[in-house]
Amino acid sequence: MNKYSSPVRVGIAGATGYAGQELLNLLVRHPEVHLAAAMSSSPDSAARPLPRLARTWDGKIEPLDLERLAKETSFVFLAVPEAAAAGIAPDLLKAGIKVIDVSGAFRIRDDAHRAKWYPATTVMPEAVAYGLVEHNRSAIERASLVACPGCYPTAALLALLPLVNSGLVDLSRGLIIDAKSGISGAGRTASDRTHFSENHGSMAAYGVPGHRHVAEMEQELGAEVTFVPHLVPLDRGILETIYIRTAPDTTAEAIGACLGRAYEHAPFVRLTGDALPEIKHVAGTNFCDIGWKFDASTRRLVMIVCLDNLVKGAAGQAVQNFNVLCGFDERTGLR
Amino acid sequence: MNKYSSPVRVGIAGATGYAGQELLNLLVRHPEVHLAAAMSSSPDSAARPLPRLARTWDGKIEPLDLERLAKETSFVFLAVPEAAAAGIAPDLLKAGIKVIDVSGAFRIRDDAHRAKWYPATTVMPEAVAYGLVEHNRSAIERASLVACPGCYPTAALLALLPLVNSGLVDLSRGLIIDAKSGISGAGRTASDRTHFSENHGSMAAYGVPGHRHVAEMEQELGAEVTFVPHLVPLDRGILETIYIRTAPDTTAEAIGACLGRAYEHAPFVRLTGDALPEIKHVAGTNFCDIGWKFDASTRRLVMIVCLDNLVKGAAGQAVQNFNVLCGFDERTGLR
Amino acid sequence: MNKYSSPVRVGIAGATGYAGQELLNLLVRHPEVHLAAAMSSSPDSAARPLPRLARTWDGKIEPLDLERLAKETSFVFLAVPEAAAAGIAPDLLKAGIKVIDVSGAFRIRDDAHRAKWYPATTVMPEAVAYGLVEHNRSAIERASLVACPGCYPTAALLALLPLVNSGLVDLSRGLIIDAKSGISGAGRTASDRTHFSENHGSMAAYGVPGHRHVAEMEQELGAEVTFVPHLVPLDRGILETIYIRTAPDTTAEAIGACLGRAYEHAPFVRLTGDALPEIKHVAGTNFCDIGWKFDASTRRLVMIVCLDNLVKGAAGQAVQNFNVLCGFDERTGLR
Amino acid sequence: MNKYSSPVRVGIAGATGYAGQELLNLLVRHPEVHLAAAMSSSPDSAARPLPRLARTWDGKIEPLDLERLAKETSFVFLAVPEAAAAGIAPDLLKAGIKVIDVSGAFRIRDDAHRAKWYPATTVMPEAVAYGLVEHNRSAIERASLVACPGCYPTAALLALLPLVNSGLVDLSRGLIIDAKSGISGAGRTASDRTHFSENHGSMAAYGVPGHRHVAEMEQELGAEVTFVPHLVPLDRGILETIYIRTAPDTTAEAIGACLGRAYEHAPFVRLTGDALPEIKHVAGTNFCDIGWKFDASTRRLVMIVCLDNLVKGAAGQAVQNFNVLCGFDERTGLR
Repeated sequence: MNKYSSPVRVGIAGATGYAGQELLNLLVRHPEVHLAAAMSSSPDSAARPLPRLARTWDGKIEPLDLERLAKETSFVFLAVPEAAAAGIAPDLLKAGIKVIDVSGAFRIRDDAHRAKWYPATTVMPEAVAYGLVEHNRSAIERASLVACPGCYPTAALLALLPLVNSGLVDLSRGLIIDAKSGISGAGRTASDRTHFSENHGSMAAYGVPGHRHVAEMEQELGAEVTFVPHLVPLDRGILETIYIRTAPDTTAEAIGACLGRAYEHAPFVRLTGDALPEIKHVAGTNFCDIGWKFDASTRRLVMIVCLDNLVKGAAGQAVQNFNVLCGFDERTGLR
Repeated sequence: MNKYSSPVRVGIAGATGYAGQELLNLLVRHPEVHLAAAMSSSPDSAARPLPRLARTWDGKIEPLDLERLAKETSFVFLAVPEAAAAGIAPDLLKAGIKVIDVSGAFRIRDDAHRAKWYPATTVMPEAVAYGLVEHNRSAIERASLVACPGCYPTAALLALLPLVNSGLVDLSRGLIIDAKSGISGAGRTASDRTHFSENHGSMAAYGVPGHRHVAEMEQELGAEVTFVPHLVPLDRGILETIYIRTAPDTTAEAIGACLGRAYEHAPFVRLTGDALPEIKHVAGTNFCDIGWKFDASTRRLVMIVCLDNLVKGAAGQAVQNFNVLCGFDERTGLR
Repeated sequence: MNKYSSPVRVGIAGATGYAGQELLNLLVRHPEVHLAAAMSSSPDSAARPLPRLARTWDGKIEPLDLERLAKETSFVFLAVPEAAAAGIAPDLLKAGIKVIDVSGAFRIRDDAHRAKWYPATTVMPEAVAYGLVEHNRSAIERASLVACPGCYPTAALLALLPLVNSGLVDLSRGLIIDAKSGISGAGRTASDRTHFSENHGSMAAYGVPGHRHVAEMEQELGAEVTFVPHLVPLDRGILETIYIRTAPDTTAEAIGACLGRAYEHAPFVRLTGDALPEIKHVAGTNFCDIGWKFDASTRRLVMIVCLDNLVKGAAGQAVQNFNVLCGFDERTGLR
Repeated sequence: MNKYSSPVRVGIAGATGYAGQELLNLLVRHPEVHLAAAMSSSPDSAARPLPRLARTWDGKIEPLDLERLAKETSFVFLAVPEAAAAGIAPDLLKAGIKVIDVSGAFRIRDDAHRAKWYPATTVMPEAVAYGLVEHNRSAIERASLVACPGCYPTAALLALLPLVNSGLVDLSRGLIIDAKSGISGAGRTASDRTHFSENHGSMAAYGVPGHRHVAEMEQELGAEVTFVPHLVPLDRGILETIYIRTAPDTTAEAIGACLGRAYEHAPFVRLTGDALPEIKHVAGTNFCDIGWKFDASTRRLVMIVCLDNLVKGAAGQAVQNFNVLCGFDERTGLR
């Protein structure tokens, strides 16, 4: 049953970054949403037109205005930088607004770890749910603030959580996640890293060791993760190759059955078995595709996971969480 | 005969932009050159390593130091921004250093036009030659400063000058040049325009009307030019499509003969006739490929020209000019 | 008013080429359509899975079966090669099925021209409408077969028809259309032309002179067209740069007013004025964006037009025609 | 000391595939080589012009002619498919010609493994050396046929051999090699896999499990290898990410010292330490760049290796072997 009268009045804080633009794009088409405000914390960006959305959305990006957000909306999506999110969220919650945060500010529960990777926040942990709908639905339904998972953790956790939780993985052998991301994952800010000429015809690893997504993955998996992200010369999409040793006596059937059960009712997870996923199949969608190859004789399992970092890895997953919070079908506005 | 004892002591001012890096790459391999100094006017860039050149060049980028340049070199390549070039060149010339300028500061002869597009300069015009070797060799041989042509004009002029000068073009019908450039043409500075995600899977025109290369082309051709440049999602290379009405009674044979004569002894111009050129064939080389299709019944001539904007359109052409100035075979260091 | 009871039973012949896959993708989401059959004329392709559509469409590509199409559908989209379309369409029409053809088989009205560029067909010209909705709506509403315009002509005609028809163009000076297309425009067949390594970092013109789209453009414009298409290293999208001399005394206001009037009620044409369009803004949509720069003193007008060759240039325009034929809002299924 | 009088008469069999074209490109510039013949086993390809080489090489691709090769050359580079190489090589050896094979036909020494992955060959194993110059120089100097390593094994072995041979790797924990390759690695044959539109904006793993390069890596390393190759949307270049557990008590210093010693005199291996390599730094060169990150507390070592698959991974390494065989400086023609 819907908990909010439709259309729900919604605001976006941070509508001009890549995740924010994608949110805007999804929310203006969402049948149960009235987009009451799309704001940007950067004065420059607020002035910039969004020609892709012409004729689809006749609104304007406005400068960030918390008071107006609190007065005119009942839900706010935060797609601002972490420090801004940590500052804004408490005020919105106090005003009774539900918050869906796409930044990383509220993902880490352990205070010491959070202090290391993210800015200080004063939000009470009880209010927060980790927004991986496929594995945390009931907590999300009760939450005031949903911390949407990072793009890399979303892919890794969807592949690994069922197997790890079922004891099919030999954790003593370590989990290795080799991730490849399109350049939009590096954000909209112009820099050497995002310059066309530095990426075209090239490829590089970065953030080794110590990407903050490791803390998030280890928190959810309860296991040590080796994680190496790479930037590849495409715009949108992540492909992760995960190297696992299974527990003794694990069979191919057990792996398939475990994943099948986990995602039987998950509309956005597609199990492709040994037909390995490709970024092209998920780009522009909220799907996460999971394929795998298993060699029982050596207990080596390789999983391949793909998703669109701006949709299932950010804006799409945020809308999916919104749907769950509101009691809508989780696919609403995401087909 | 060589006019300078080999190896010639050479310096680069502006070695870390894309044209500057290409110059560095060419000059460290040039058999008649001793690279005495590679300097950068940006303190940041001077500190940055150049991993591509490791084992090939064991030098270091240093902060710009005019005195040292004047003392330790007899030739300086300027690949700094126009304003810096306009400032530096006069001092180097006074010190008896020959200058090869890759910026645009000295390309325009008309004072009013130059004032409009480029910063003021105090260099005496008599000292300057326009560095299109294939059409201006004897002036270059006598010059103290060579103003290397812009990347777009190089392609356009190599295609058009022979035909225009031979009277085979009906100039009253106008000259239309539709240019497509890789992103390195927009320079190394990170910006929205050079962001990977803004260019991947996209394409756009820019600088319409009023790209300053128009003034340069009109100066050399003595005719009105309509010029629309576009950025295409590749790194290096320019392709120009040129639309011409020929003078009455022009024959296909006349066109071929005119171009053949013009480039009979030009080692870097390849006439491909009706096998149209592709960027792939010239990328990384100092070649300019020129092909064409002619419809005598309607007098419509379409020319396609390709070159690598960082080589024949910048650093390679600069080295070619250097070779001519020094009396070396113009291909030295460019094969 | 809708002329067909909803949902309309629809079939696709040729569902595995790039235009066909896009049609499939659009029609399975179309709220007024029941997709009764998706067929392929190539036995190979029929067997191939379409992983991108998993969970969105649970059907299967079947081998082409005209009898079943005739029995189970009232509309058929043809996305097969021209020769096949020319062979299939008459039988479908005889069976009372309406046909929307994405191939070029029925675009050219003049018998001699059609014989030159396309295979012979026995369809009566009276049954056929040229499917440029924005300029031919009433003929489409009455037609049995809609010949969807080619991708290049769609862009060119949307930009030029209003100005040419209003007498604002000096046709004696010729119309020059410089077109740039993503590689999907070359079709799904693997060849040297579509090989990744031949296109990455490269660009080339092709089909000069004599692309068959010229005949189509000249038919609709009633004027001589110079047309040079190029392949650029991106997947989807066309950008055309059009060079025009306006009629004497044409003003900037007249141009803007003429285009504004023409597209006042056209939901898929966006006039961007002097903010020039980019492929990124239209990719994945049914929009055609048109911008321009005008220099009144020289009467030079440059227009830039962008569309997605697989959507507005093929499958999306086909669905738009279908909507018009059925009496649905032309935006249905295309937002 | 040179063992052959210069210039050495050399032939290429298979000059039109991507590795063959690169060989041609290198050999026509090699100062000690006279290219006596460039042949293609495919009649189609022999007729095709090579516009990139115009003005650089005035020869013509000819149909394969073994007799002429045997008569007019003393060295033959084979860049034909494996089956052809297995057939041709014995005849050339009998004629006293030295052979440098770029195909995989002679890489695997174990008969059973070779029979599984490669066509039968009658060449005596004593005649063959595995052409990894940095680790097998003396055998190469004495060989009649050099089997050049595969592109993936070249990168993996250059990174791993020193550490494995020094006992710094805990082999019981397995070796994991996650490889990313540009599309030229899939060869020149047009197919779905090499179609531009299937690769642009996408990425996929392939050949899991069971790429034949695994047999080659395990043969040289004497250890079990988990290997997953991926195709990434760029043309040239390989990046491999290698996951290792070091032997107990291994220090960062020991790793650096071991690699430093191994490549002290290797002109084409560059150790970048913790400044991780990028494909852009090696594309178009014969360098192999090796970087690494080590976490002593968990014994996790991640190595990143980059090379150009067509140069160090194929044609460049072949020329390097040729130089060693002839007694030339191994850098000749490769700078």
